[in-house]
Amino acid sequence: MKFDDAAAAIAAAGRRMDTLGWVPATAGNLSVREGSGRIAITRSGCHKGALSPSGVMRVDAEGASLEPGARPSYETLLHCGIYRRFPDAGAVVHGHSVANTVLSRRAGAEIRLAGYELLKAFPGGPTHETEVAVPVLDNDQDIPRLQRALDALWDRTPEAPPGYLIRGHGVYVWGADMPQAMARLEALEFMLLCHLEEGRTAR
Amino acid sequence: MKFDDAAAAIAAAGRRMDTLGWVPATAGNLSVREGSGRIAITRSGCHKGALSPSGVMRVDAEGASLEPGARPSYETLLHCGIYRRFPDAGAVVHGHSVANTVLSRRAGAEIRLAGYELLKAFPGGPTHETEVAVPVLDNDQDIPRLQRALDALWDRTPEAPPGYLIRGHGVYVWGADMPQAMARLEALEFMLLCHLEEGRTAR
Amino acid sequence: MKFDDAAAAIAAAGRRMDTLGWVPATAGNLSVREGSGRIAITRSGCHKGALSPSGVMRVDAEGASLEPGARPSYETLLHCGIYRRFPDAGAVVHGHSVANTVLSRRAGAEIRLAGYELLKAFPGGPTHETEVAVPVLDNDQDIPRLQRALDALWDRTPEAPPGYLIRGHGVYVWGADMPQAMARLEALEFMLLCHLEEGRTAR
Amino acid sequence: MKFDDAAAAIAAAGRRMDTLGWVPATAGNLSVREGSGRIAITRSGCHKGALSPSGVMRVDAEGASLEPGARPSYETLLHCGIYRRFPDAGAVVHGHSVANTVLSRRAGAEIRLAGYELLKAFPGGPTHETEVAVPVLDNDQDIPRLQRALDALWDRTPEAPPGYLIRGHGVYVWGADMPQAMARLEALEFMLLCHLEEGRTAR
Repeated sequence: MKFDDAAAAIAAAGRRMDTLGWVPATAGNLSVREGSGRIAITRSGCHKGALSPSGVMRVDAEGASLEPGARPSYETLLHCGIYRRFPDAGAVVHGHSVANTVLSRRAGAEIRLAGYELLKAFPGGPTHETEVAVPVLDNDQDIPRLQRALDALWDRTPEAPPGYLIRGHGVYVWGADMPQAMARLEALEFMLLCHLEEGRTAR
Repeated sequence: MKFDDAAAAIAAAGRRMDTLGWVPATAGNLSVREGSGRIAITRSGCHKGALSPSGVMRVDAEGASLEPGARPSYETLLHCGIYRRFPDAGAVVHGHSVANTVLSRRAGAEIRLAGYELLKAFPGGPTHETEVAVPVLDNDQDIPRLQRALDALWDRTPEAPPGYLIRGHGVYVWGADMPQAMARLEALEFMLLCHLEEGRTAR
Repeated sequence: MKFDDAAAAIAAAGRRMDTLGWVPATAGNLSVREGSGRIAITRSGCHKGALSPSGVMRVDAEGASLEPGARPSYETLLHCGIYRRFPDAGAVVHGHSVANTVLSRRAGAEIRLAGYELLKAFPGGPTHETEVAVPVLDNDQDIPRLQRALDALWDRTPEAPPGYLIRGHGVYVWGADMPQAMARLEALEFMLLCHLEEGRTAR
Repeated sequence: MKFDDAAAAIAAAGRRMDTLGWVPATAGNLSVREGSGRIAITRSGCHKGALSPSGVMRVDAEGASLEPGARPSYETLLHCGIYRRFPDAGAVVHGHSVANTVLSRRAGAEIRLAGYELLKAFPGGPTHETEVAVPVLDNDQDIPRLQRALDALWDRTPEAPPGYLIRGHGVYVWGADMPQAMARLEALEFMLLCHLEEGRTAR
């Protein structure tokens, strides 16, 4: 994929995430793997509500900037960690919703989702009769250490879905390309909102 | 109705459903009966947020594709089942809202709505003094079997309103044309949201 | 005020009410008093999401259509009742929100609002130290009888604010012109949403 | 900063606040410090949904109008109080959200936020391991007296974050410029929404 196309896809998806309320302040970041060890990713500290291709830059597979003087998103290494582990991953999105923030703060090591038709948005042929366990990790300002915790998790649970939550921080979801990553994010956020609602209601 | 007009009406209604948050990921599907045994329906797997007429195709009354190589929405047979049963039905919409998902997961075989002015959106002259029972069916990945359950339900309850819920899956609503189908959907979703809120509140 | 200006103001306000989720299906209606016994009001059964001046027509002070063959909104007599009673009223808006529907269904004869800075949107100089009692009437499909109940209420409580709720049905608010009517509606809906939230929360 | 640029930044931020539901009716106000003792601020009583630069005027550092006959926002003195106290403040935003209204009505003298990644939007290097105490003041129609209470608060707690709530009234947030003020506002409102949700949920 060419950088211009990647940057355009990232910008459109970022604006949609803003419309949906999932990237408050300058939160959230998005990337697309261009191939040849290059990743297009949002710059550090930019608001996604008016995101344009100029808010996207290039890093290498280890997250080092390929644009002199430019700083990529603070959590670039988490994007790199996903691309390194999952050869089929072509796009990664990270957002903060009220649902994923509140549920991850009260959850243990995972959130189990079952009975939803939308589970079909995940790979491996799940249906409403399947249960999917979304991992929840403790937040950590030390991003390399957080990535090591993720690698250990994926070693233990190779069946984990293409997404995880960080406690009080947000969600990461990936797919083969940006439309698939966004569709999975929307499906997950929808089920989390239902899950939150079910915990909220008395009768 | 000509295919082009049907496709335009479907695309506009799909985008509105996306704005209202009722078609997350690639969920939801919409159709219009053209007449002469032809149905215009959304293609499989497309997102409704940027739905255009090119995302709409033709099937026959049994749901078989009339466009070589194109795949209609997975739940096409449920649309056909409505058109077969109800000669006056000219448009069908299917969406996933948080309210219809959560309420259908906790409901029994129906959800009873009473006291709402908006009940007047349903046919047969109901008012706020009438009660309408919206059927809730168990979800089933076997769509022909689900349609048989619906036919059995309609045999038993000919007074059923022009809509039903599938547990954890979503809602189907129909009308004489797309504006009427959408108005009924909006009225139903509004009352479900009120119903959800009433179950949520302590005092 | 000229009819064209009145119709444009009504159309813009109707579309905003749709954006705010207050006119689901074909619910809601809006009017502006033109003077000389003429009222511009939304036609019966039109959706407010794409409301244009062509969705607005003229009636006289008793609500009779001044456009041959055209049918005004079903609740036109409630608009006329407000204009007849309150000489300063120049615009009336009616909407259905989840908050006003749910709260009116559980309320007695009024909802008392106190402690909100936004009470200042009502006339008569209220502040956060004042209490405003918004009347709640039982719904009635007999509109003239409902209007008689309103007139009796206004006889008893001349200090009533420029708005009332109908149980399970919606809210009516008026002002000197459309911007003031809409500002009061937005203030009232905001306080009702806070009121609903306060009843919802455990700690 | 030139007045035209300040007015354009204010208008864009005001329209965004309207989209987010934080400036119902004519609530809310926004300002930018131009320097040389001049402040650009929203006019009194205008709706923010269609705010344009013509809805912005100039006042001096004491809040006196620099435009003959024009009336600045009623709470101009609170903007001036922030600029006087905090030399780095370049923009101030004030809004009414359901979350800040409801939480401030039930809070004591502060709301404590901890465990959120978004705390990093505040100055001084907080992380999810830090706690931030957002001050809550009683509402007061006597604005100079309210400003004296704020000055006393800032004397006692120099570590206070760049924002505060007024009970039942709304939030004030500031930053070096409008993008930073808005990012902090969005971060704070997001955390308040999470806080409200956590108080709402039974299990």
